[in-house]
Amino acid sequence: MLMTGEEYVESIRKLKPEIWMFGEKIENAADNAILRPSLNSVKATYDLAQQPEHEELMTVASHLSGEKINRFCHIHQSTHDLVRKVKMQRLLGQKTAACFQRCVGLDAMNALYSTTFECDMAHGTGYYKNFAVYLALAQANDWTIDGAMTDPKGNRGLGPAQQADPDLFLRVVERRNDGIVVRGAKVHQTGITNSHEVIVMPTQSMKPGEEDYAVSFAVPVDAQGVIMIIGRQSCDTRKLEDSDMDVGNCEFGGMEALVIFDNVFVPNDRIFLNGETDFAGMLVERFAGYHRQSYGGCKVGVGDVLIGAAALAADFNGAQKASHVKDKLIEMTHLNETLYSCGIACSSQGWKTSSGSYMIDLLLANVCKQNVTRFPYEITRLAEDIAGGLMVTAPSEKDFRHGKLGPYIEKYLRGVDSVPTEDRLRILRLIENLTLGTAAVGYRTESMHGAGSPQAQRIMIARQGRIEQKKELARAIAHVGAKQE
Amino acid sequence: MLMTGEEYVESIRKLKPEIWMFGEKIENAADNAILRPSLNSVKATYDLAQQPEHEELMTVASHLSGEKINRFCHIHQSTHDLVRKVKMQRLLGQKTAACFQRCVGLDAMNALYSTTFECDMAHGTGYYKNFAVYLALAQANDWTIDGAMTDPKGNRGLGPAQQADPDLFLRVVERRNDGIVVRGAKVHQTGITNSHEVIVMPTQSMKPGEEDYAVSFAVPVDAQGVIMIIGRQSCDTRKLEDSDMDVGNCEFGGMEALVIFDNVFVPNDRIFLNGETDFAGMLVERFAGYHRQSYGGCKVGVGDVLIGAAALAADFNGAQKASHVKDKLIEMTHLNETLYSCGIACSSQGWKTSSGSYMIDLLLANVCKQNVTRFPYEITRLAEDIAGGLMVTAPSEKDFRHGKLGPYIEKYLRGVDSVPTEDRLRILRLIENLTLGTAAVGYRTESMHGAGSPQAQRIMIARQGRIEQKKELARAIAHVGAKQE
Amino acid sequence: MLMTGEEYVESIRKLKPEIWMFGEKIENAADNAILRPSLNSVKATYDLAQQPEHEELMTVASHLSGEKINRFCHIHQSTHDLVRKVKMQRLLGQKTAACFQRCVGLDAMNALYSTTFECDMAHGTGYYKNFAVYLALAQANDWTIDGAMTDPKGNRGLGPAQQADPDLFLRVVERRNDGIVVRGAKVHQTGITNSHEVIVMPTQSMKPGEEDYAVSFAVPVDAQGVIMIIGRQSCDTRKLEDSDMDVGNCEFGGMEALVIFDNVFVPNDRIFLNGETDFAGMLVERFAGYHRQSYGGCKVGVGDVLIGAAALAADFNGAQKASHVKDKLIEMTHLNETLYSCGIACSSQGWKTSSGSYMIDLLLANVCKQNVTRFPYEITRLAEDIAGGLMVTAPSEKDFRHGKLGPYIEKYLRGVDSVPTEDRLRILRLIENLTLGTAAVGYRTESMHGAGSPQAQRIMIARQGRIEQKKELARAIAHVGAKQE
Amino acid sequence: MLMTGEEYVESIRKLKPEIWMFGEKIENAADNAILRPSLNSVKATYDLAQQPEHEELMTVASHLSGEKINRFCHIHQSTHDLVRKVKMQRLLGQKTAACFQRCVGLDAMNALYSTTFECDMAHGTGYYKNFAVYLALAQANDWTIDGAMTDPKGNRGLGPAQQADPDLFLRVVERRNDGIVVRGAKVHQTGITNSHEVIVMPTQSMKPGEEDYAVSFAVPVDAQGVIMIIGRQSCDTRKLEDSDMDVGNCEFGGMEALVIFDNVFVPNDRIFLNGETDFAGMLVERFAGYHRQSYGGCKVGVGDVLIGAAALAADFNGAQKASHVKDKLIEMTHLNETLYSCGIACSSQGWKTSSGSYMIDLLLANVCKQNVTRFPYEITRLAEDIAGGLMVTAPSEKDFRHGKLGPYIEKYLRGVDSVPTEDRLRILRLIENLTLGTAAVGYRTESMHGAGSPQAQRIMIARQGRIEQKKELARAIAHVGAKQE
Repeated sequence: MLMTGEEYVESIRKLKPEIWMFGEKIENAADNAILRPSLNSVKATYDLAQQPEHEELMTVASHLSGEKINRFCHIHQSTHDLVRKVKMQRLLGQKTAACFQRCVGLDAMNALYSTTFECDMAHGTGYYKNFAVYLALAQANDWTIDGAMTDPKGNRGLGPAQQADPDLFLRVVERRNDGIVVRGAKVHQTGITNSHEVIVMPTQSMKPGEEDYAVSFAVPVDAQGVIMIIGRQSCDTRKLEDSDMDVGNCEFGGMEALVIFDNVFVPNDRIFLNGETDFAGMLVERFAGYHRQSYGGCKVGVGDVLIGAAALAADFNGAQKASHVKDKLIEMTHLNETLYSCGIACSSQGWKTSSGSYMIDLLLANVCKQNVTRFPYEITRLAEDIAGGLMVTAPSEKDFRHGKLGPYIEKYLRGVDSVPTEDRLRILRLIENLTLGTAAVGYRTESMHGAGSPQAQRIMIARQGRIEQKKELARAIAHVGAKQE
Repeated sequence: MLMTGEEYVESIRKLKPEIWMFGEKIENAADNAILRPSLNSVKATYDLAQQPEHEELMTVASHLSGEKINRFCHIHQSTHDLVRKVKMQRLLGQKTAACFQRCVGLDAMNALYSTTFECDMAHGTGYYKNFAVYLALAQANDWTIDGAMTDPKGNRGLGPAQQADPDLFLRVVERRNDGIVVRGAKVHQTGITNSHEVIVMPTQSMKPGEEDYAVSFAVPVDAQGVIMIIGRQSCDTRKLEDSDMDVGNCEFGGMEALVIFDNVFVPNDRIFLNGETDFAGMLVERFAGYHRQSYGGCKVGVGDVLIGAAALAADFNGAQKASHVKDKLIEMTHLNETLYSCGIACSSQGWKTSSGSYMIDLLLANVCKQNVTRFPYEITRLAEDIAGGLMVTAPSEKDFRHGKLGPYIEKYLRGVDSVPTEDRLRILRLIENLTLGTAAVGYRTESMHGAGSPQAQRIMIARQGRIEQKKELARAIAHVGAKQE
Repeated sequence: MLMTGEEYVESIRKLKPEIWMFGEKIENAADNAILRPSLNSVKATYDLAQQPEHEELMTVASHLSGEKINRFCHIHQSTHDLVRKVKMQRLLGQKTAACFQRCVGLDAMNALYSTTFECDMAHGTGYYKNFAVYLALAQANDWTIDGAMTDPKGNRGLGPAQQADPDLFLRVVERRNDGIVVRGAKVHQTGITNSHEVIVMPTQSMKPGEEDYAVSFAVPVDAQGVIMIIGRQSCDTRKLEDSDMDVGNCEFGGMEALVIFDNVFVPNDRIFLNGETDFAGMLVERFAGYHRQSYGGCKVGVGDVLIGAAALAADFNGAQKASHVKDKLIEMTHLNETLYSCGIACSSQGWKTSSGSYMIDLLLANVCKQNVTRFPYEITRLAEDIAGGLMVTAPSEKDFRHGKLGPYIEKYLRGVDSVPTEDRLRILRLIENLTLGTAAVGYRTESMHGAGSPQAQRIMIARQGRIEQKKELARAIAHVGAKQE
Repeated sequence: MLMTGEEYVESIRKLKPEIWMFGEKIENAADNAILRPSLNSVKATYDLAQQPEHEELMTVASHLSGEKINRFCHIHQSTHDLVRKVKMQRLLGQKTAACFQRCVGLDAMNALYSTTFECDMAHGTGYYKNFAVYLALAQANDWTIDGAMTDPKGNRGLGPAQQADPDLFLRVVERRNDGIVVRGAKVHQTGITNSHEVIVMPTQSMKPGEEDYAVSFAVPVDAQGVIMIIGRQSCDTRKLEDSDMDVGNCEFGGMEALVIFDNVFVPNDRIFLNGETDFAGMLVERFAGYHRQSYGGCKVGVGDVLIGAAALAADFNGAQKASHVKDKLIEMTHLNETLYSCGIACSSQGWKTSSGSYMIDLLLANVCKQNVTRFPYEITRLAEDIAGGLMVTAPSEKDFRHGKLGPYIEKYLRGVDSVPTEDRLRILRLIENLTLGTAAVGYRTESMHGAGSPQAQRIMIARQGRIEQKKELARAIAHVGAKQE
């Protein structure tokens, strides 16, 4: 059952998670000036689902119930679904110019759907049924679900069980009849304060002996023992200044938190993996695969806004006809559409899992994400080029509204005469927001590390690249005999 | 009706085109040592169509006759067809490591199919019928057709009618009751000596006053007045040396020619455009669009061979475990699959024309080709890096077969002891062929200029990039009002 | 006479410039939390000049007085001096990880020295004498001088006199017996609040009819009518939070202001150009040339700090032995040293002007700056890659110091066990500061636009690139006759 | 004593080296059509030394004799000498558009000069005296000397003594009273057929136990047991066609050979290292350092020709005013001058060795060469972009001279009307030569691997990059304490 945006906000308001920021407990995150923009971004996933023109992208009939659900709660039933997912993400990126946070849960649900199915086939476990019941609830309630994967990991040179502190990877610390108790933390938790539930997954493949770390489950965000500490973002406190202009994007944003699981109890029916080390890797790989696809949609949408902003910046100072400006806009568009092509390609080449759901093409999804670790950086560089230095030297809105200073700023920072100075400054602040400010966290650093750091994709590309087959092709052309064993 | 490869070769042998090379007339191109490898590449498009494992990619049921035809003669009936076209091209690139030349005609036929339909709708002309009859013949005879677009163009700063010599763009010089007479030339004609027919199209959009240049038609390659002068390729004459090793790829290759149309007569029923200047642009744009898609398949296949060859070169000198070598192979794979993603994406996002045939997504196809003007260059650079300097300093096969020199070469140019020196040299010659030799013409320069030079794609990206819509997105986020008119 | 750092601070404290920030007048910039770090950076240019180990780079004998002066007040007397300037700048970049602001004045003085000399030779004016007297004062007082070049420029498609508002380029509005009155503004004024004086120069070459805009002069920063409005920087207000950790670099920073010249009077002896339009271009070109050289020093020093920080980040989480991490550090070093090479090269190839001072090689200086518009962006991208996502999701210092939260953070954000979590967080905050925070303004956007935006360098490269000579080389090799006139 | 170019050719003609090519013995390399262009390139180093306008770059007073000698025989006595070396190399690159081959010996002599001095200091050996006598001869006779470093190396994963065949690294096989006997091979020997002498050096640093491989010496090129097998180059046999046009550069070229040392005797006074494994590394490092500097000169000169050729290609087809063409020429120039900056910088920052000679800055020289492995590839890509496809599809000169075909080619391949078609074709052939033909071997592959493959520079950059010092800088800024031991 679809919620409206307002209903969603109310539903979040009713939860009581333990949230901390700047050393203080946040009782009402929904009305916190720093956090509210991130809530608005998630809210947009509900708002757009209400709009007829976006119905095809935003909603879909559940394969479980047949009911119309938000696509963010859907298990992909075809490559068509996979393609529409990417288009939905581009749309939301365009409308929010920020991270709208709801993809992680979507990708976690899809990864769990097929992995629990295959785990049950192999081990006779009952995770698929657990998960199917949970999924039906999620769809019925139109939940936003956070997916929690990344453990702190401590010393990167050591495995989970070798760390000085065994909790540096989240683990089962107690097994009871009615469930398990877990301890650890998940870092970089995007959207956790705006979620109803959180699904926890292992952070990497596990080996025998690491059973306690091979665990997946779901709990409500306000479960006992779950503690969130909000991460700082560049320019975060600018949102406290009551300046519509200076924040660049006053409506939308993203958020991340360090989430502590301090002896959290998980009932049996919410457990989706518990000790089957041989399926931890599949779960990680599928989640990462879906999430690397996602970036071929959402970041492209944000890129659209940045390209548009750069074009306006040029219009506003009369540089729009300079051949180098036109060429830079073309290059930005070219790079952005290359990302989109990768998102579309890995979707259209998806395949049916044994559970019936559809998985993306893993090689192409990794290629997609690898490009996402590069091109947004070049797009921001070009945007900064077109924007000009004023983007980082313009006075504050307070100066602009000041009786003596305002007229000076109005006079001297005007570009083409027909455009108000305020409009010019607003566009520059938006570019600042996306290249250096709060949104740069999402558009740059998250493009780098979200869904796995660049090296993670390279390892997958090496694995999936069929290099032995390529060698055979070369041997055939060069008339070189087969390898001597 | 599908021809076998041998039947194809015989059918070509029966034609009598006027071919010149090195100042001499070539009576039998099919047996010419320099040209034969290019014939073999086209032959592969017939051979593979006979193989059951490639049936799905290589053949399809004609929408006209219902008969099984070679996909190279097919009018795309779905996005599925478009995707399979790209996969077929990748397959052929893998099998030939060269340009297999038959795409130009395929793309010309598809461009003409929908353009003639729309021209007839607009002008009441009868080109679509002409073309449909011709298409049926092409399918029935399993023809290879060359597409001829690029005019010499003389001074790039001047239009067709402004040139010092009016023939620098091909044009109608006489209109008769039974047809037209044309004069001019087409440069860079890929595969013309291996084709049964040639379809001529204008090289750019035309304006009123340029009616004589807005002409499209088909003639047999041995029509009266058609003269071909073979272009030189890097290392072309190495094929005359009887050295299997030194050519790198002794079976397959490509060819291009300057084709003169010296007062060639075209009967009425083979005319597909004749003076409708407003449809010249559509024809060019659609042909270029399809052909820019093509490069997301064929060049990827060639790239697969080059990656495989580089990997073998590393295996053969024991460097395969060096982290920088592994990383370079990953990068080559990443770039190659990015090209493939673009080819797949513009196909899967295709759309139905009013004629019923399917067109690719124009923006994404241009993005695809733009990347093709870059990544193969980086892939070749990385291949040269891995190959090492021996690629350009190794002795000739004659030295290798020499009684005194051979043992020295065998001894000193051995890499890992288990691999024969000859195998190592063969792989290095293949890399030389692809990066500097005959195949570099196809893999590098043709990647740059084929289907339009880079700037042509940039102009299309600018046109298709929906920049005004992007500005609106930025305005909405930055709370900047709509443009004041 | 050299001032100590403390004497410098006191000397600045005595001035009474009109400074505004966030709509409020700043009476004491030296003690303002947001501005103080920028003062500290300039102070470092005095502090280091007192240290024996830096004497050779930081000080030099004045060619006017023979006295030991700070190199920032020196007119270059040899290519050796030019090289040492670059090394001094790298040193200061290393010590401050910020923009130390004193180069603009240095480059302005050197540009004026030779340009006034040549202008006097050509026009019989007396600017060189004016400037020599001023220079002697500057050296004697060890002044920090700001150089003010960039006008607001309004509509980029229009010249100074064509703007809707004639003041969008600074101009002479009144000529009196004892001097001139000027009106206009200069944007992006780096270090103005930390300077004793400001030298104003035209922003571009001027044509006949633009005499009022061809003006150069010096005034004290607290001259009547000079108004400064501080520009916002990313994360500027974080400096108000009393968090040593969260700012990343708590000691040093940079600043820029919009500076209004509201009918400022300039006495005759402080005028260095007044209406000689034919010398505006030379002044701009020489200033820009020196300043493009400067970036081959200062940004390299900042780059050194960022590379070191990234290496520490890897050490601190145990990733330092991963081959991809090592390779990224090598790449960062390679790019950084390429910038340095350009800075050194344009210096070592300098030439003696007719005034006796030394000018850098203009082509190579433009090449230097052009690389600076690219490589710092790639270096930051690689730093973000190595740093990991924690850089943008770590909790605030307030959380870290909090009784309940601190232990969680200490436990879960620890990397290798031997390194305190605080150290790890501090290094990540430094990387954040350089890639997204206040220092990113200097290291990224200023690298792009300072000393001229990228296109300005490309125009100079085109002019200086001796393309006609290169064509002659090609003609000689290809046996192509000389151009037919 | 300086030889004229003609005297040089005669002196080479008098030697009787054993040279093989295409399985045949070459009795007179000086008159061989394939090899003669490479001789001409070396000859240019003699011809230019006779021209007054190049005297300052090409000649210098010997520090041994005080006589005027060719700079190619000089031991650098100052950073000024080092800078002039680079300028001399750029000049020769401009005049030959090819590899002029004489740098290897120059760099070998300079490396040996200081290394033998330091080895003697450490071990009491007498190599410096041996070498000084040899150097005096080289200067007196104006010899061209080849430097031979690169061993075949077999399996890259194994050391010299671990190879299946111990000769895969050149080694001493017999020690006699009057000298030593060596066996092995050197690959990629540039200019060996045009040299009077060859200096052999180890290919890498050596460890105890590898004494037989730590050997350096000089022999005449026609010493008993020295056998040269000429390596194939792309388009090598085009030089046999008697076509001035088709070769692109009919006068100049380069050559490489596999050189076998089949039990070659070396008298005691020509031995410069013999078992001192601890000095093998220094010799390699210094030679490589000088040679990596060299590439910042010679390749820049070749780049100048290619840029000029691309500019002419645009002029000749009327595209020279297109903004994208102008921008590409700027980019080519920018990249080329960046390489030059690196060559100049590592020279100007040179330092005095204990022998009194000057060494380049090792870090910057490695940075220089690393860029050379990249930028020429991008410059060639841009040149191919501007040149257009005709570069690889134009007919042969034989067609152009043919009675029937010539007029067609003249008519249809004309660009702007004022430029003869022949001139246009000649320039395109020059671009082909540099990007795909014989000169591409030097401009591309040699740029990659000459003076060490890219990874070799990266290892040196890591070693020389002072990363620990950079970490200290970051610690100081971030207020992070020193490393806990």
